[in-house]
Amino acid sequence: MLASGDLVFLWSPVKGDSFLVRLTPGSTQGSHLGQMKHDDIIGMEYGDVANTNKGSPFFVLRPTVGEYTRRIKRQTQVIFPKDSGFIIQHLNFGPGATVVECGTGSGGLATVFAHFVGDSGKVVTYDRREEFSNLAKSNAERWGVGHRIEFKVRDMSEGFDERCADAVFLDVQNPWDFIGVAHEALAWGRRIGVLVPTFNQIERTLVALSCFNFVDVQVLELLMRYYKTDPRRLRPDDTMIAHTGFLIFAAKARPVPSVSESAEDAPLVAAEDA
Amino acid sequence: MLASGDLVFLWSPVKGDSFLVRLTPGSTQGSHLGQMKHDDIIGMEYGDVANTNKGSPFFVLRPTVGEYTRRIKRQTQVIFPKDSGFIIQHLNFGPGATVVECGTGSGGLATVFAHFVGDSGKVVTYDRREEFSNLAKSNAERWGVGHRIEFKVRDMSEGFDERCADAVFLDVQNPWDFIGVAHEALAWGRRIGVLVPTFNQIERTLVALSCFNFVDVQVLELLMRYYKTDPRRLRPDDTMIAHTGFLIFAAKARPVPSVSESAEDAPLVAAEDA
Amino acid sequence: MLASGDLVFLWSPVKGDSFLVRLTPGSTQGSHLGQMKHDDIIGMEYGDVANTNKGSPFFVLRPTVGEYTRRIKRQTQVIFPKDSGFIIQHLNFGPGATVVECGTGSGGLATVFAHFVGDSGKVVTYDRREEFSNLAKSNAERWGVGHRIEFKVRDMSEGFDERCADAVFLDVQNPWDFIGVAHEALAWGRRIGVLVPTFNQIERTLVALSCFNFVDVQVLELLMRYYKTDPRRLRPDDTMIAHTGFLIFAAKARPVPSVSESAEDAPLVAAEDA
Amino acid sequence: MLASGDLVFLWSPVKGDSFLVRLTPGSTQGSHLGQMKHDDIIGMEYGDVANTNKGSPFFVLRPTVGEYTRRIKRQTQVIFPKDSGFIIQHLNFGPGATVVECGTGSGGLATVFAHFVGDSGKVVTYDRREEFSNLAKSNAERWGVGHRIEFKVRDMSEGFDERCADAVFLDVQNPWDFIGVAHEALAWGRRIGVLVPTFNQIERTLVALSCFNFVDVQVLELLMRYYKTDPRRLRPDDTMIAHTGFLIFAAKARPVPSVSESAEDAPLVAAEDA
Repeated sequence: MLASGDLVFLWSPVKGDSFLVRLTPGSTQGSHLGQMKHDDIIGMEYGDVANTNKGSPFFVLRPTVGEYTRRIKRQTQVIFPKDSGFIIQHLNFGPGATVVECGTGSGGLATVFAHFVGDSGKVVTYDRREEFSNLAKSNAERWGVGHRIEFKVRDMSEGFDERCADAVFLDVQNPWDFIGVAHEALAWGRRIGVLVPTFNQIERTLVALSCFNFVDVQVLELLMRYYKTDPRRLRPDDTMIAHTGFLIFAAKARPVPSVSESAEDAPLVAAEDA
Repeated sequence: MLASGDLVFLWSPVKGDSFLVRLTPGSTQGSHLGQMKHDDIIGMEYGDVANTNKGSPFFVLRPTVGEYTRRIKRQTQVIFPKDSGFIIQHLNFGPGATVVECGTGSGGLATVFAHFVGDSGKVVTYDRREEFSNLAKSNAERWGVGHRIEFKVRDMSEGFDERCADAVFLDVQNPWDFIGVAHEALAWGRRIGVLVPTFNQIERTLVALSCFNFVDVQVLELLMRYYKTDPRRLRPDDTMIAHTGFLIFAAKARPVPSVSESAEDAPLVAAEDA
Repeated sequence: MLASGDLVFLWSPVKGDSFLVRLTPGSTQGSHLGQMKHDDIIGMEYGDVANTNKGSPFFVLRPTVGEYTRRIKRQTQVIFPKDSGFIIQHLNFGPGATVVECGTGSGGLATVFAHFVGDSGKVVTYDRREEFSNLAKSNAERWGVGHRIEFKVRDMSEGFDERCADAVFLDVQNPWDFIGVAHEALAWGRRIGVLVPTFNQIERTLVALSCFNFVDVQVLELLMRYYKTDPRRLRPDDTMIAHTGFLIFAAKARPVPSVSESAEDAPLVAAEDA
Repeated sequence: MLASGDLVFLWSPVKGDSFLVRLTPGSTQGSHLGQMKHDDIIGMEYGDVANTNKGSPFFVLRPTVGEYTRRIKRQTQVIFPKDSGFIIQHLNFGPGATVVECGTGSGGLATVFAHFVGDSGKVVTYDRREEFSNLAKSNAERWGVGHRIEFKVRDMSEGFDERCADAVFLDVQNPWDFIGVAHEALAWGRRIGVLVPTFNQIERTLVALSCFNFVDVQVLELLMRYYKTDPRRLRPDDTMIAHTGFLIFAAKARPVPSVSESAEDAPLVAAEDA
């Protein structure tokens, strides 16, 4: 039974209007289809139908972490599920993982990361701007995962405190300046991830990754296309979001011994003889 | 220190050739760059460099669940990280979730789901073909998550055993035939997900979802574009995978009371008066 | 020197605001950057700068047929240069071609076709709605190609008057109903083109094309992605048009003699013996 | 009736295998479906069916300029109809246009341009490599439009001979080095087009365009997606060409008078008073 403090996703069949709401006694959710009293929803179950004062029905659904992070209060670029879903896969952010992130921003990514690392995992996120850190903390707590995240307010010139992290993620304007400290914080053979919106940033980040001998470098982007859901007139939506950001991934590895060194040690010849 | 039985991801700087290997004493991994002895890798750390007998270096990296599921032994369509990453977000597959899937196939999706639900969660997967179930079990165990999955060999006409599942996922040729039993198994206000390759299948699935009053129906696809990583010649790859499948999502909700019923009960008018 | 009646493309560096205008003495072009008097532009040359009464500059450029057809007065779906450019290539609409089209709509496609077939070519376009035919005629004349187009107002159940056309193009809701009459009008070995927005329409059109033995059937769509033009922050536009329509092409060919007929005539065996 | 020297497009229903062939008495076209004698096709009509010596049918279709340019003998990157179709629209390459191009390459673009400008138009194309010029000439003549093209072998440091061209197109590795001479050759208010494969090239080209006061700058790319044509299993092709090149367009315009000059001449104030 839905109680005060629960998050609900309210979805209307009229144009798919929707709201992600934290139930608060005495509060009202406005919409152009009318007003909904939170008190009417408290006591319902997920799946029930709430009506506005104008009689328009809204379905009371369980919110998803993807929807949540798209709708958090924010002062920075939203993170999209298409991107965060790929990140957690490519960086192995399952239960128990230790993740280091810079910068915190509005906390969207940190919230997703914390959702998937579970209570046995940990997210440490850095930002030099205290107001962002506070906003992000509030956003993560609202989703119930604030206790899994450590928020550090810090100028990154000092580097990360962590070592041997399972993954490091950079969501800053100048990621090339942080590749060195990210390398320090990351465990060997594990991966760094970077999100940038422009090609100029990709160029500079690739150069920096090369300087620190990162390997298995990948640059990619994800495009999501929605379709209209009338089965008699099935077609793509007329417009789409054409760009959110580019994802860069790379793994921390030891340098390959140079050829001259190899020649001295002659291991390659030996191997061939074997 | 890497030991017998560990999974390693071997990546070569030559054209990005790579292998996902389970270390087995006495075994050898072949490549067109030469042979690698597993015994040479056992005892290394992630991040180290292994050489083939021809002197070509391979970096020994930690494998990711995304890479793993793309490379499992399979008799069915591969599942791509771009798709599974979005699915786990939209279906909230974090630690502790209970997920029901049909069909098992080669177990790629079940393995990803089991990776993210953690030891406190559970995946139940159905397939009527025993050979698929066995292959999937072996694939999931190799990734270390087999104990989180229950494999059921079953003709689905009997329906699912589960009720109040956090999510149901259908990866079958005729998902429209399973919308009813999926509805039974799913908790109210939670979501079903469906993966199909053709538009004809989308059409029929949308009709079936409508029959069972599913709401917040979404049809979408994800396209992934890789870029070449030379920072002086930054450009998209020449070719890309243009199609893996369409994702359909919908939430289980109670029907809206019909207008005539509403008129009898007159709650809408009352609400407007309030 | 620009004279009364000339078409000019006015482009502002402020957000790329632009207008396609036919110069008319005494007229004024409004914009949120101020008013431009046509009389100020008459007597200028292409490339000159016209100022609004608020001092905002607009560059006076030569319009392109692509821009023109996107901006014509219309009651139907706009045709996009990405689509019409591919159509004229795949249907060989160079100077001298004879093209048959149904339906006329607002005349966007007919205008592009007439632009490229030149004075030695001819476009015949059919629509059963006289008001569309009149609008289309006015649009084509404004671009100076009205004399190359014959506008026929006709219920298509009677079929096309033309035979041996170089190409037939269908831009109607139910193209499957016109495949037969299109086949009649088209020369052997030449191509039909169809534009439809939904997958359901593709399905039915493919079936109809198959009934009339069309070959080399292609179904495709074109996506256009714009980039922001700041060289220091190069990136795709945030949103894009995700769907205009699907293009279907096919060639009119004689049926392959059936196997039994072939066996009687035995030409295949003879060929193998040779 | 098809005669010696005619171009035909041979299309097989088996996997869509196809050839673009110039009919030559005594010649044979090989395919993995068997051999076709040109002499068997000479005397046929478009739309007829030719059989290989193994009895496999090929349909004899009229070739399109789009297919032709994709299949010309070449030593350079192919030009795709999706790109050339947009170029001729955005640069107004209809009958009678005068077009200047650099470099010639294998002549694919020059052939398309010449196809659409007709006998009343003209294409002048430059390349410093004589072997390319010769190849391109042969390719254009094969399509029957060689007489509309002037091939100049020239180091471009001397600039173009032409002035007041309707359009200039650059298809070279370093277009930024040619923006100045392109500006000289182009008529006011008309457009330049540039094709480059990398983002680094876009960056440098944008800077050069800005130096010469080009306006209405657009950067875009076109993606083409094919669909499988079975109406019962309608779906996108599994793979696609993900990148051919980026298109840059801009118009030649006079500089806007600077603010200080304007202030002296005070035309803006006068305009506001009016």
